[in-house]
Amino acid sequence: MREELAIVLNLLIMFGAAKVFAEIFTRIKQPVVIGELLAGAVIGAHGLHWVIEEVMVDGHLVNLSHVNNALAELGVIILLFLVGLETKMDDMVEVGRPAILVGFFGVVIPFALGYAAFKALDYDTIRSLFMGTAMVATSVGITARVLGDMGLIRHKVSRIILGAAILDDILGLLVLGIVSSMAKGSFNYLEFVILISEAIFFVVFFTTIGPRLAGRHIHKFLDRLRIQDAPFAFGIILVLGLSVMAEFIGLAAIIGAFLAGIVLSETKEFLELEHKFQPLGNLLVPFFFVVMRTKFDVVALFNPQTLMLLGVTVIVAVIGKMAGAALGTANLGLKTALQTGIGMVPRGEVGIVVGTIGLSLGVIGQDLYGIVLGMSILTTIIVPPLLSVAFRSEINQPEPTPAEDGA
Amino acid sequence: MREELAIVLNLLIMFGAAKVFAEIFTRIKQPVVIGELLAGAVIGAHGLHWVIEEVMVDGHLVNLSHVNNALAELGVIILLFLVGLETKMDDMVEVGRPAILVGFFGVVIPFALGYAAFKALDYDTIRSLFMGTAMVATSVGITARVLGDMGLIRHKVSRIILGAAILDDILGLLVLGIVSSMAKGSFNYLEFVILISEAIFFVVFFTTIGPRLAGRHIHKFLDRLRIQDAPFAFGIILVLGLSVMAEFIGLAAIIGAFLAGIVLSETKEFLELEHKFQPLGNLLVPFFFVVMRTKFDVVALFNPQTLMLLGVTVIVAVIGKMAGAALGTANLGLKTALQTGIGMVPRGEVGIVVGTIGLSLGVIGQDLYGIVLGMSILTTIIVPPLLSVAFRSEINQPEPTPAEDGA
Repeated sequence: MREELAIVLNLLIMFGAAKVFAEIFTRIKQPVVIGELLAGAVIGAHGLHWVIEEVMVDGHLVNLSHVNNALAELGVIILLFLVGLETKMDDMVEVGRPAILVGFFGVVIPFALGYAAFKALDYDTIRSLFMGTAMVATSVGITARVLGDMGLIRHKVSRIILGAAILDDILGLLVLGIVSSMAKGSFNYLEFVILISEAIFFVVFFTTIGPRLAGRHIHKFLDRLRIQDAPFAFGIILVLGLSVMAEFIGLAAIIGAFLAGIVLSETKEFLELEHKFQPLGNLLVPFFFVVMRTKFDVVALFNPQTLMLLGVTVIVAVIGKMAGAALGTANLGLKTALQTGIGMVPRGEVGIVVGTIGLSLGVIGQDLYGIVLGMSILTTIIVPPLLSVAFRSEINQPEPTPAEDGA
Repeated sequence: MREELAIVLNLLIMFGAAKVFAEIFTRIKQPVVIGELLAGAVIGAHGLHWVIEEVMVDGHLVNLSHVNNALAELGVIILLFLVGLETKMDDMVEVGRPAILVGFFGVVIPFALGYAAFKALDYDTIRSLFMGTAMVATSVGITARVLGDMGLIRHKVSRIILGAAILDDILGLLVLGIVSSMAKGSFNYLEFVILISEAIFFVVFFTTIGPRLAGRHIHKFLDRLRIQDAPFAFGIILVLGLSVMAEFIGLAAIIGAFLAGIVLSETKEFLELEHKFQPLGNLLVPFFFVVMRTKFDVVALFNPQTLMLLGVTVIVAVIGKMAGAALGTANLGLKTALQTGIGMVPRGEVGIVVGTIGLSLGVIGQDLYGIVLGMSILTTIIVPPLLSVAFRSEINQPEPTPAEDGA
């Protein structure tokens, strides 16, 4: 098979399956994201095996899984950028207190519970600490997608979740830094302080000074450029640039993408950015959900020992975040606590990254890595149905009929 | 380095470099495409070496060149789809006669000249035939891009070139089939007839019945779908689907993408497709030109023997197409002949595919493969400046000032 054929066929299968399942799930009034995840399961390596992972080209093996990963990564970056564009800093400041509390407790409690659970299961201290660490960071992609699909991305709870997820990522980096250093048996305070300072500076800069700089100078700057559609090119470069910076510092790329959206959120109407990035999202976002699910090996879990361990981990991961959210939103009522808690549950690719680091440090083996992977994916795929139930009353308000514009 | 970081950094470097060079080339009033090709040369493996081709992730080597190839492929597919959207079949029929003649002579003459040149250079018959074959097919991507950038994509000459390029691809497939069979020493008439019939049926169906079917039934079909933005999803599936079918039959993927555009060209206003695919093109098309150029090793050519052979090949490839175009447009004046001829010169990825097949059949060795590669790329990168000179008088007409719509 020619590489070109394999590449395009792969895209067609993934995109086509995502849309077929999206159509079905829209008809049965379930979140589209679940359809896309299910599409991944059906066509993936543990289903019909339709996704091409490796192909022989001229006698050498071409691994296409990196192409899938790249499209998935680009998809989730565009998704969080679009969420950022919808987010005004003033709205975020308004929910500052609950967001900070949810973020803080949402790190401390899952970490403590995770550590305690694995310690109780007779794992040694460093392994237990690491499993606690893997439970810390929230991956806000799927929550943002579900709330966005329901038209609730500017809802107060959405803003609390987004703010808390940023804090989670910073605190998660801190915990990961400490635990990794313990595993390596060396701890360089200076390096560590620099790392955390960088992360905090990065987030603070691009949520406070960034949007103001953009608001004041971006029009003048873009007016001077001669290339076609300079605002779009600038948007792409900014979102990729901040994603790289975030990764480089040790945060998740999606945090950078979200901040890029916030930087441009005040200027977006003028630049028509949303309008132009939406088609990119429509093309690329499904790959994130399809690809994530193609990797999940359900069969390998059918083993009592593994199932039990995974069950415990998922329960601890869910309860930990729910408890953290409840503590953080104590004065906002039970419904808010529940909605926030569910929204914070997914660990997604951030959990997987932590697991991969643990594996490469030798702290955890393939067995625990599998558990982290399973926990990250399960916490992600259980959330969409729960969210749609939790937010049912918000979307039961009469929907506007589709605009009948034109003649 | 984490795989995510490598992927996003790679995208940032390629896109950023493309835009920096695009800005410079816009300012010096040169075609943007040359800027993008130059960007590839500067950051590529034989320049600054900034494009990440391989990266170590957890102790195993991840080859990112397939990611670059995939983005490039997706870019050129979207590009030709957009060109197809701009193309009405009535306009194509209008230029049918010259297009067919240009296509026919543009295959026969380069093939004959290429064969004769290599025969004269003392290569054996089968090798010489194969080198002639490699000179046959036109890759219309760069020509379409340059003419599109100049706002001339619906110009009569553009339509002649597009029509001729389709015919070239079918005839090229025919020649490749025959020569490959000779090389293998076996020739299955039935298989061969089926192959060519498939290709002709494919093109005829999607230029005649396809657009009519779409015009009549597509609205009803899309109205029944419940997914968000069904027309966009349908467009993506159609363009990927026809690209895969084209590749499968043995045509270039871009022929399928172009036909997908034609199928939807009569319905596009209603579906707002252009409007939504433009941003995809803006993001992805630069990768095609940047990636193509990153692979071209200038230094390896500095060897008198290779340079001479490459020089001969390029001259034959250029003269062959120019002569074919001149014969095909004999009654349309010298300027049309010149414009058409230049537009038909690029061999691009289609030439490279033929070279790769020759290599895998054992007909040609690394030396001649290098020549085919060099010829394909050189014929592609010399065209933009020549085209902008040849079409100078067309764009010297007073341009409309940018529309100042809104308040």
